[in-house]
Amino acid sequence: MMEKKRMVYADNAATTRLSSYALEAMLPWLRADYANASQPYSFSRNARKALSKARACVAECIGADPEEIVFTSGGTESDNWVIKNSRFLCPHRQSILTSQIEHHAILRACEDEEKFFGRSVLSVPVDGCGHVDCDGFKSRISNNYGLVSIMTINNEIGTIQPVQELCSIAHEFGCYFHTDAVQAVGHIDLNVKDLGVDFLSASAHKFNGPKGIGFLYIRKGVPLPSLIAGGKQELGMRAGTENVAAIVGMAAALQENIEHLDNNRTHISSLEQHLMFGIKNMGIERLRNGHGPQYPGIISLSFKGKSGESILHRMDLMGICISTGSACDSNNTRISHVINALNLDPEFAKGTIRISLSKDNTFEDIDIIVDALGRILST
Amino acid sequence: MMEKKRMVYADNAATTRLSSYALEAMLPWLRADYANASQPYSFSRNARKALSKARACVAECIGADPEEIVFTSGGTESDNWVIKNSRFLCPHRQSILTSQIEHHAILRACEDEEKFFGRSVLSVPVDGCGHVDCDGFKSRISNNYGLVSIMTINNEIGTIQPVQELCSIAHEFGCYFHTDAVQAVGHIDLNVKDLGVDFLSASAHKFNGPKGIGFLYIRKGVPLPSLIAGGKQELGMRAGTENVAAIVGMAAALQENIEHLDNNRTHISSLEQHLMFGIKNMGIERLRNGHGPQYPGIISLSFKGKSGESILHRMDLMGICISTGSACDSNNTRISHVINALNLDPEFAKGTIRISLSKDNTFEDIDIIVDALGRILST
Repeated sequence: MMEKKRMVYADNAATTRLSSYALEAMLPWLRADYANASQPYSFSRNARKALSKARACVAECIGADPEEIVFTSGGTESDNWVIKNSRFLCPHRQSILTSQIEHHAILRACEDEEKFFGRSVLSVPVDGCGHVDCDGFKSRISNNYGLVSIMTINNEIGTIQPVQELCSIAHEFGCYFHTDAVQAVGHIDLNVKDLGVDFLSASAHKFNGPKGIGFLYIRKGVPLPSLIAGGKQELGMRAGTENVAAIVGMAAALQENIEHLDNNRTHISSLEQHLMFGIKNMGIERLRNGHGPQYPGIISLSFKGKSGESILHRMDLMGICISTGSACDSNNTRISHVINALNLDPEFAKGTIRISLSKDNTFEDIDIIVDALGRILST
Repeated sequence: MMEKKRMVYADNAATTRLSSYALEAMLPWLRADYANASQPYSFSRNARKALSKARACVAECIGADPEEIVFTSGGTESDNWVIKNSRFLCPHRQSILTSQIEHHAILRACEDEEKFFGRSVLSVPVDGCGHVDCDGFKSRISNNYGLVSIMTINNEIGTIQPVQELCSIAHEFGCYFHTDAVQAVGHIDLNVKDLGVDFLSASAHKFNGPKGIGFLYIRKGVPLPSLIAGGKQELGMRAGTENVAAIVGMAAALQENIEHLDNNRTHISSLEQHLMFGIKNMGIERLRNGHGPQYPGIISLSFKGKSGESILHRMDLMGICISTGSACDSNNTRISHVINALNLDPEFAKGTIRISLSKDNTFEDIDIIVDALGRILST
């Protein structure tokens, strides 16, 4: 009898497994407790209480006040909301300052603003280590800018951006500051008051919560108009019947991750070291992309003269899920915008893969990955 | 031993119970099959197939082609998307024509367009029966309008609007036509090709699907830009990691309802008749709001000299969930905009309640409701 191949999931920056604790927390709201949370009768009371508890829990996890948390359908909605409605924050400052390594949810929202509203967008480069340089940033910012948006952790190379410093510079110039923290919330210690940011986006499915739910932190008093108007849900900030089950699941997953943040990080750091040691021992010419402050669970590797896409597919055949930093169509190899921003030698850039680890990965997973990479890269 | 009070849920226009068939269909995607549907490896293949099957299923249920269905976070997002991005459909036709009885997701999105972009919005009145009059509509429309948005079924009084005729008139004037069909999809037979509409909004939790998911039908070739930009999900029309579980649950719930559409409607019509008969026998002065083509599951009643809000609260104490057409704060009774549009005698308007029934309601439920109303209204 054939044994079923064991899958190794190492694409946790794409999505994570829904925590069973979070799923258990969700189920009552998918079964008997199906009330619309905004109705005035007793049947809705449980749902209303659950929303209020979830909001307080999420707020506490990032050092916010509950009324500063607005639930959305995910990180992409949160990002679009801030980028697009920043139009109304400072009428005389329509320019946006962002970086070349932001997620497409930011970059494409910015492109829409350029295309449809003629706003100007400046994307600052990153240094060779994959960080926005504070001095360079300061030399480019001016009081033409109404909004700055710089991510907390890059999703391809794991670099942790100097958000606190950049935010402080932005505020000196009177700009609002947003951070796309989709890859950071639930993974690193993070406090919005310490960072000083005006807006912060997060997505539940990146921290073992359900898909289709996220939140936007909006600092008290910042007059961001709604992207989605209608009913008076979410303190009048985001209309639409509340997705109670998903909100409860998100809060449970976040709380669970935050409670084990140090242990998770230690475990993931050990896995990262084990992986890097294994790869070093292979003796194959490679680069690790990004340096300096970096989240250990996101590991971008470039192999000289190889194709990232072909590595991905061969790993897939071995039951291993990873991601890539480039994709080929029939004519071209398209290097990702993040890898491009690092100015890698194209011989390396084309051979880029991303291995992203979670608390659920094991040392055995790493051994399987290293063994597979060794076999693929030696041929 | 006290027996636990049996709850009668008669607020199905607010939300519906998630179908257990739909929940079962969702669970694998909340457990082992958690892959990001947009990744290229085998683990994502099941999710991609499930999305494709769900899209085909939803499309078939409303007579659309699969590529005309875009999944959103719900009806409110779908409505906002069309209203707000209709800005870009006809640059020289920035006016919007809608009705006074639309859902707040339409009316408040329109208000935002007036406030932030200076667009003009005309809300046409309805006749005493709660319908947009086609002749009146034709006399008001002109080629200044870029978009018309008229709902399919009103959520407070259940009137079915003459969407096909209104759409045909709108098209004569070169206007795009949107219908908010949140209260109609899964409840009445509905075919987008027959209706001729360019856009149609729906929300899963109104037809026994999960909360936080819905869709927008966009007729092939209509160039509506994205509201939420980023990744290339949903044929490049709506970014954000796909909410696979909810999408699968929505399709399952819709298919289940459509398969039993005739039986459900017959059952709900019988319940409606039983209710109206019971209320008639009470001999209390009342009005049924809305006439003519009307969905039997949405019953708006106004009782002279009574308070809708107080009826709701007394029903709640008896374990019955209904809704109201007015709400009181400490100083005022606020009559809903829909009831206001009917020009009711205020003595009746203040005493308005909505009873909304589903396939799951029973004749016993109706007896309990009638008995409760009799006791409340006789005092």
